[in-house]
Amino acid sequence: MNLKQMIKDRQLEPYMHKGSFGIEKEGLRTTSQGELAMTGHPEGFGDRSHHPYVQTDFSESQLELVTPPQESLNQQYQWLSALHDVVNRTIDSEEIVWPFSMPCILPAESDIPIIKVSNQGEIEYRKQLAAKYGKKKQMISGVHFNFSFSEAFIEAFIKDARQESEAIDRCNALYLKMSRNFLRNQWLLTYLFGASPVSHASYSSEGEGRYYRSIRNSPMGYHNAFSNRVSYQSVEGYVKDIETLVTEDVLTEEREYYGSARLRGKGKAVKNLMKYGTRYVEFRSFDLNPYERLGFSYEQSLLTHLFLLTMVWMDKDSSSEEIKRGEKMNRETALEDPFSLSAFKDEGAQLLNEMQKTLKDLNLPAAYQEAVDSAREQLLSPEKTLSARIVKDLGKEGSFIQLGLRLGMNYKEHAFEKPFLLTGFEDMEMSTQLLLSDALKSGLETTVLDVSDQFLKFEYMGKVEYVKNGNMTSHDSTISHWIMANKTVTKNILKRAGYQVPRGEEFASVESALSQYPLFNSRPVVVKPKTTNYGLGISIFRQPPTYSNYAEACRLAFEEDGSILVEDYIEGTEYRFVVIDDKVEAVLLREPANVIGDGSRTVAELIQEKNSHPYRGEKHRAPLEKIKMGEIEQLMLKEQGFQFDSVLEKGQRVFLRENSNISTGGDSTDMTDTMHESYKQAAVEMAQALGVKVTGLDLIIPDITQPSTEEKPGYVTIEANFNPAMHMHAFVQKGTGRNLTEKVIRMLYPSIK
Amino acid sequence: MNLKQMIKDRQLEPYMHKGSFGIEKEGLRTTSQGELAMTGHPEGFGDRSHHPYVQTDFSESQLELVTPPQESLNQQYQWLSALHDVVNRTIDSEEIVWPFSMPCILPAESDIPIIKVSNQGEIEYRKQLAAKYGKKKQMISGVHFNFSFSEAFIEAFIKDARQESEAIDRCNALYLKMSRNFLRNQWLLTYLFGASPVSHASYSSEGEGRYYRSIRNSPMGYHNAFSNRVSYQSVEGYVKDIETLVTEDVLTEEREYYGSARLRGKGKAVKNLMKYGTRYVEFRSFDLNPYERLGFSYEQSLLTHLFLLTMVWMDKDSSSEEIKRGEKMNRETALEDPFSLSAFKDEGAQLLNEMQKTLKDLNLPAAYQEAVDSAREQLLSPEKTLSARIVKDLGKEGSFIQLGLRLGMNYKEHAFEKPFLLTGFEDMEMSTQLLLSDALKSGLETTVLDVSDQFLKFEYMGKVEYVKNGNMTSHDSTISHWIMANKTVTKNILKRAGYQVPRGEEFASVESALSQYPLFNSRPVVVKPKTTNYGLGISIFRQPPTYSNYAEACRLAFEEDGSILVEDYIEGTEYRFVVIDDKVEAVLLREPANVIGDGSRTVAELIQEKNSHPYRGEKHRAPLEKIKMGEIEQLMLKEQGFQFDSVLEKGQRVFLRENSNISTGGDSTDMTDTMHESYKQAAVEMAQALGVKVTGLDLIIPDITQPSTEEKPGYVTIEANFNPAMHMHAFVQKGTGRNLTEKVIRMLYPSIK
Repeated sequence: MNLKQMIKDRQLEPYMHKGSFGIEKEGLRTTSQGELAMTGHPEGFGDRSHHPYVQTDFSESQLELVTPPQESLNQQYQWLSALHDVVNRTIDSEEIVWPFSMPCILPAESDIPIIKVSNQGEIEYRKQLAAKYGKKKQMISGVHFNFSFSEAFIEAFIKDARQESEAIDRCNALYLKMSRNFLRNQWLLTYLFGASPVSHASYSSEGEGRYYRSIRNSPMGYHNAFSNRVSYQSVEGYVKDIETLVTEDVLTEEREYYGSARLRGKGKAVKNLMKYGTRYVEFRSFDLNPYERLGFSYEQSLLTHLFLLTMVWMDKDSSSEEIKRGEKMNRETALEDPFSLSAFKDEGAQLLNEMQKTLKDLNLPAAYQEAVDSAREQLLSPEKTLSARIVKDLGKEGSFIQLGLRLGMNYKEHAFEKPFLLTGFEDMEMSTQLLLSDALKSGLETTVLDVSDQFLKFEYMGKVEYVKNGNMTSHDSTISHWIMANKTVTKNILKRAGYQVPRGEEFASVESALSQYPLFNSRPVVVKPKTTNYGLGISIFRQPPTYSNYAEACRLAFEEDGSILVEDYIEGTEYRFVVIDDKVEAVLLREPANVIGDGSRTVAELIQEKNSHPYRGEKHRAPLEKIKMGEIEQLMLKEQGFQFDSVLEKGQRVFLRENSNISTGGDSTDMTDTMHESYKQAAVEMAQALGVKVTGLDLIIPDITQPSTEEKPGYVTIEANFNPAMHMHAFVQKGTGRNLTEKVIRMLYPSIK
Repeated sequence: MNLKQMIKDRQLEPYMHKGSFGIEKEGLRTTSQGELAMTGHPEGFGDRSHHPYVQTDFSESQLELVTPPQESLNQQYQWLSALHDVVNRTIDSEEIVWPFSMPCILPAESDIPIIKVSNQGEIEYRKQLAAKYGKKKQMISGVHFNFSFSEAFIEAFIKDARQESEAIDRCNALYLKMSRNFLRNQWLLTYLFGASPVSHASYSSEGEGRYYRSIRNSPMGYHNAFSNRVSYQSVEGYVKDIETLVTEDVLTEEREYYGSARLRGKGKAVKNLMKYGTRYVEFRSFDLNPYERLGFSYEQSLLTHLFLLTMVWMDKDSSSEEIKRGEKMNRETALEDPFSLSAFKDEGAQLLNEMQKTLKDLNLPAAYQEAVDSAREQLLSPEKTLSARIVKDLGKEGSFIQLGLRLGMNYKEHAFEKPFLLTGFEDMEMSTQLLLSDALKSGLETTVLDVSDQFLKFEYMGKVEYVKNGNMTSHDSTISHWIMANKTVTKNILKRAGYQVPRGEEFASVESALSQYPLFNSRPVVVKPKTTNYGLGISIFRQPPTYSNYAEACRLAFEEDGSILVEDYIEGTEYRFVVIDDKVEAVLLREPANVIGDGSRTVAELIQEKNSHPYRGEKHRAPLEKIKMGEIEQLMLKEQGFQFDSVLEKGQRVFLRENSNISTGGDSTDMTDTMHESYKQAAVEMAQALGVKVTGLDLIIPDITQPSTEEKPGYVTIEANFNPAMHMHAFVQKGTGRNLTEKVIRMLYPSIK
């Protein structure tokens, strides 16, 4: 089969670079002294047997991060990044994830803990591996790169096959050629990506006294010595050879076959490859890149992708003999001194030319070109390769362990710089980022269906749930959503059910609102648009309004909406009650932007200090907003007799805003534990009256020291929000943050503890 | 108590005209020959014992329409109007509702059917009434006007009462004064509104040979002779007197007391008036106005309202003696000749002056002034009163029965002129009007919570349901709504569940869409905004697009939304499947605007004829839209070689539009019965996969003669709509209309048959 010609004939070049990408990345949990962590797998990850993303490999201390297959490398890295945040935030505060392929300080062979799972078969398998290879070899970590062509490409490629077997043959042919040529040429990637020049003495004294490109890819590393007994010339041969190795007890199980390229099909049995065809290939020869927080850089992935495409697109193919030669070259490359030129430099240059050709033929984006250029440069200048850079840094840092600790610590700290964001998904709303983070941690199989629409899909033990905007779920009815979206309807229902809401009127025209002025000329009122956003168009009259003020307020409110409400103004403090699944999970007090004097600093300096809090950001990218120093704030100061450069007395509090919205720099104080039970009870009952599982109720409470009773209700409810922000409860200015996204997950999946 | 002063002291004038208004209106079902209908109460109204709006009074043939209390007369008339539509559309096609208070042609006394209900007590009560008054008297119909002040007014009026009993006293004082003065002065309303100048011979021969203002209000009419035995000076007196009448067996039950003003409180027992106070007053002396489709005109209601306010606002009050005098004046007025001046003309003028004063003091709208002006005119010109107008028309029409039949027929026809609208609620969406209509017919207790938001509340046998936009209910989850709102998510879910959706890509920028042009240069595609409205921004390429056409299509689509979809174009016909509660309830074929030639008329003439169909209207005010003759249509014609003045051959069909939307003049054909079961099955399963009870699925089916099978699915689903229009299925161009709103009601209330 001339695969290239077949692709050209079908005009499939534009589809060819599309694919499905997955990364598996191992890493040892390590103490702050650089020793292997002897703690158990973190409980925060829940039930390990269902966790699709965070697994343990051979050892209890060896984390394996598995990204779900993604349609682009970009999405792949979003996932890899997010999983690193989740892992770094979940492991013991004293531990880091070791950034090198070669292990940290290992204990004695016998003390290395094998995974502790309930499945006895899994433990037995590991014990046999330990006996065969030694536990220490199993502690070497690496990156696996999984690749398949896109469904659309494969579909179009096999469309004109006359029978199913022909379609399967075509598909296998693609992945076999890719694998053969990969095995033949992988030495180049080892030259470029090799990053295990050295190991700690606790690993082995073999090969001490010099540096290598990749101990892991060398005979000192961890690989089967019998990979040359497996054929890649046909799927039938591949399957037969692996089955024979198992029959002859050379391998304990099929999965023990650790070739650099493993064909993967339906299920775990290799024989399915014949019946259903190859679905993807797992490439396993990559060292951890210690300079990359995620263990493997985006540029490395681009180059790997291009390399794999080239393995199919190039005219040459590789015989079994050539594959053996390629594996030998790979071992030799691995053993080379990092600073020496490659023994196969010229062939490497040719290979890069082939890649350049692929890039051009397939019209790949510029980033691929940059990756090739960088590879070309490294081929000419070995000191620019990863292994050489590590060796140089070892000298500066003092030791392998020191260097590993410093890098690992940095990566861990990164996860805590903005604990309210989930790297990779920062474009989504904060509540969704937090929900996503908790879902990944709990081991829900998660799909981001639509980033801009905040649409997630979860699956856990077969149960599918969809969530939009962090808390819109199947547990709430569509009508309860619209009930809360309509203030008049909400009030109507709450009132009829016997709860306290402000008395008021709705108007659909300025004329009708003005004609009813006499109703409002003798009491404090609030004039507001029926649908409000961030408090726009609201006028509060603590004293009965004059006609002209009332008219102006109506005009302002009508600018925001086609209907307005004029309601009794209730004197008191507003609290946000979040009800989830019939329980008040958070109560929050929001106060207008303010600073408190210290007797020496100016208002501007106090604002600056307050704004430096890590929770304060801009444009809804942080749980709290920075206080602005604009006209409104200036005016507000002026009304209190101050300017930005006024020095405030110690303890003196001045407000910069009238409204208490977080979005205009307001403060947040968690009151969940201090709020009297009677108010929480009322909130739960109101949610039930509205028929809703998730809501944010805004209650005005004049005096929280007095409980609310049926005879003397202590509150008035002014709003019910169908999609309450959750992040503002998780990260508060004062008090204890409340993780509400976790409560949403528990509501959807009560079996998750 | 000086009530007026108390109102003034509390500055309650602006609240005073606000109130709660209800109307009860009786009417006989009558055959097209003017005889009393002997048929049973229409089955369409469902279970009579739960029906809040359409009841039967004394006779099985005597309908009683009851509007729920409304906060304004305007709303009151919306309800009254809607109920008349519902009644006229539900009664037998051969029957009308008799427009006069005096009965149609009655059968012999013994043949008049008493109501047929299951409650034996109700039947016994009617039998006793029949025995006491004669059945024929019971057949006289009228209007009851129920009034109470607004809650806000009452609340403010009693706020400073020192104890509950004082509050109740104040409240009673208001309604007692209103009732006393009403009884004293009601003769004026009988003069103005009296509309029973004559009766048919089958009723009685008493008083034959001359005309009256109001037989019904006269001693020949239907009223208790003992109303002067009930005191209105205190609630205690009122209660004691009625109880005594029952004890003495003068009345069978308390409810038999038919005074012109009946105080109503909590529950049915009059004694509750003392404990809980008067809640509203029922004024019962009004004849049916035969010139008014609804039996009582809006102007009559305005005048009545003003009259009632005046009865409180006027300084005078009425002693028991004066009440007796008032009742005598009313009887005398009723017996006057319609063309004679009132014997109490001067007092009437004074009364109108009082009303004028009230109007001014309370600053009532101009419509009240017009009502007073008209009354003043009638006082001076008796020939302008209702009774006189009827007498004049009797001469023209030939007979009382002829006149009644003509008017009743007119009112019935009105209900069928636009059967897709519900008079009174025409501002609401058509689907909501139809739902409302079915709800009123079925006897759901209905509240229109928000007209502009299409928000309804239903209650039936204690079960409350809310519905927005005709079919958004508690039966669907909020997430299923958002799933369908997002085309990409919908496709994703349907595809994973194994259903057919078009292959496609989503793009968030013009650049990314253009860069992927190679994917689309060899197949037919549709370029569309991710969120579409009325087909805006959609480009269809039946042949693979050129780059420049593709680029232009992307640009157009991005004008409508921030994301666009490029999907395979599927050749075939699009059908709308509406699934409700796991069943396909309608299948609709929509075709682009078109006309078919007859060999003589021009395109323009054919369009004009097609547009004259009663289902065609403009701007979504009818189930089908009129075909426009604009630039697009002109261009479309030109492409086919025609102009608007081209004469088409017989049978020749030309299209005026490319798109099949109803909103651009498209045709609709119901296909519910002809569509193959396999497609309906697929639609039901897709709705289940989306987890949704109500949806409109758009399927492209190349060949409906072939069933869809799992191996060879015959359809591709291009959209799932969360709020499918229902009216377009009810009123179709071809085929049988499908009542979907009824299905929604059955989903919510399975007990309703």
